[in-house]
Amino acid sequence: MDDKTLESLREFAVSMAHEAGDIMRKFSDMDHQVERKLDNSPVTIADKTINSRLIERVKQEFPEHGVLGEEESYESGRSSLWVCDPIDGTVSFILHTPQSMFSLAFVVDGEVQLAVTYNPWTDELFEGAKGKGATKNGKPIHVSDRKWGEAIIVSTSDPVHKPYPTDSPEATFKIRSEGNKLFHLAGCVFKGMMIAQGHGDGYTFPYFTAHDIAATKLIVEEAGGKVSSLSGKEQRYDKNIDGAIVSNGLIHDELIKITSDYAYSGD
Amino acid sequence: MDDKTLESLREFAVSMAHEAGDIMRKFSDMDHQVERKLDNSPVTIADKTINSRLIERVKQEFPEHGVLGEEESYESGRSSLWVCDPIDGTVSFILHTPQSMFSLAFVVDGEVQLAVTYNPWTDELFEGAKGKGATKNGKPIHVSDRKWGEAIIVSTSDPVHKPYPTDSPEATFKIRSEGNKLFHLAGCVFKGMMIAQGHGDGYTFPYFTAHDIAATKLIVEEAGGKVSSLSGKEQRYDKNIDGAIVSNGLIHDELIKITSDYAYSGD
Repeated sequence: MDDKTLESLREFAVSMAHEAGDIMRKFSDMDHQVERKLDNSPVTIADKTINSRLIERVKQEFPEHGVLGEEESYESGRSSLWVCDPIDGTVSFILHTPQSMFSLAFVVDGEVQLAVTYNPWTDELFEGAKGKGATKNGKPIHVSDRKWGEAIIVSTSDPVHKPYPTDSPEATFKIRSEGNKLFHLAGCVFKGMMIAQGHGDGYTFPYFTAHDIAATKLIVEEAGGKVSSLSGKEQRYDKNIDGAIVSNGLIHDELIKITSDYAYSGD
Repeated sequence: MDDKTLESLREFAVSMAHEAGDIMRKFSDMDHQVERKLDNSPVTIADKTINSRLIERVKQEFPEHGVLGEEESYESGRSSLWVCDPIDGTVSFILHTPQSMFSLAFVVDGEVQLAVTYNPWTDELFEGAKGKGATKNGKPIHVSDRKWGEAIIVSTSDPVHKPYPTDSPEATFKIRSEGNKLFHLAGCVFKGMMIAQGHGDGYTFPYFTAHDIAATKLIVEEAGGKVSSLSGKEQRYDKNIDGAIVSNGLIHDELIKITSDYAYSGD
């Protein structure tokens, strides 16, 4: 991909991220006026609004591309795809904790070439381009150099309803007794960006949805880390994935082993 | 207290909050440069810097008042005290999750009269004044009207090392099986402000440190909620407390009962 093409893709993704951020902020305020029950509707409306807007803009600006979105897709069999999670971190969005994020990856033949994620609550924009590094608000970011035994593992804020491989009693015991920390935080993309910045060292993701991981895959790897399937394999990001292990690279094998040995059965 | 006195106290607290926010941001960046291990030192230095600055300013601006701080106190036997947690949410600060906050309460004879908390990562300033309501960035805030059976309980991000009363297996089972949600999030003051805004409905706090709760006590109550000791009693906030239950008021008795029936023994 030549530099001019890459720059036009990047400009589109960044502009889309800011537009998504505006929509997230607008619906977050509205949520508060409309209702006070724990309910998915405002986040669902915001999700759909962003997803529709992406499809509309891709049709206009890159008519040869497709979209694989959480809420809606368009020509998702095409080789050049925009893979998007309009609002990652539904719980964070509903609870108004500043960890829900927009996530967008440009994928060619299953491989992520460019990625942008955006946290509208802290105005942090993350970018990655294949072979060109990763940045936050324009400054280079890097994963940590912590090894197993001093690592920070991050997991879900709702370990009962979303049992991550690191949350079984056996896994929790192993992680902590061997000297590592384990913290519960909402937001899959938020956790990915923690790892890309060296603020956390690894997490496991037990679902099949590529839109949750595609942008994180590239940004974390361009920051020096590693992202694989739950069993440690490379995988495509234009269709269902076999979960993910996201790490600084140094603790990757330990997380694969924990997932294999101790993950909740049946989930 | 006359309006003019109240306004001068308020101006001081708000100015101190912004100064603390600047220090938090500065040390958060420095943390990243200085070291990459999970270590308390940058947060400890930032904590101490803010605490010292508060004492220095109180001596200058309110020479008749004392300070009860997390890191350092000054004339803490005086009837008019500034009770301060310079950085609440140590884990959030270290992990760079935007939930560490500054917390300051003005307490007279054990009763909180004025409170300010500040989230420097999202630039949200919360205020409460006795009998005058609670605000976020100047706009009134209110607790939720969710009842037990549809409530959102929030707890710690590190339930193994910090076992909150809601985190024992029996308590967790009761909370969830009766229709409520339970989420794990870092930051005691952050959780308090969630409840004051109606984004969460209750949490329990099993420690004796008044500086963690003093500002939350007033802001949550001025937003229509309730804050008591773990056993449901009123308590002073100028010395050690008997933990806290912080709620929207509607689920307060259920949280007292869970604490009494199911809290981890020995903690």
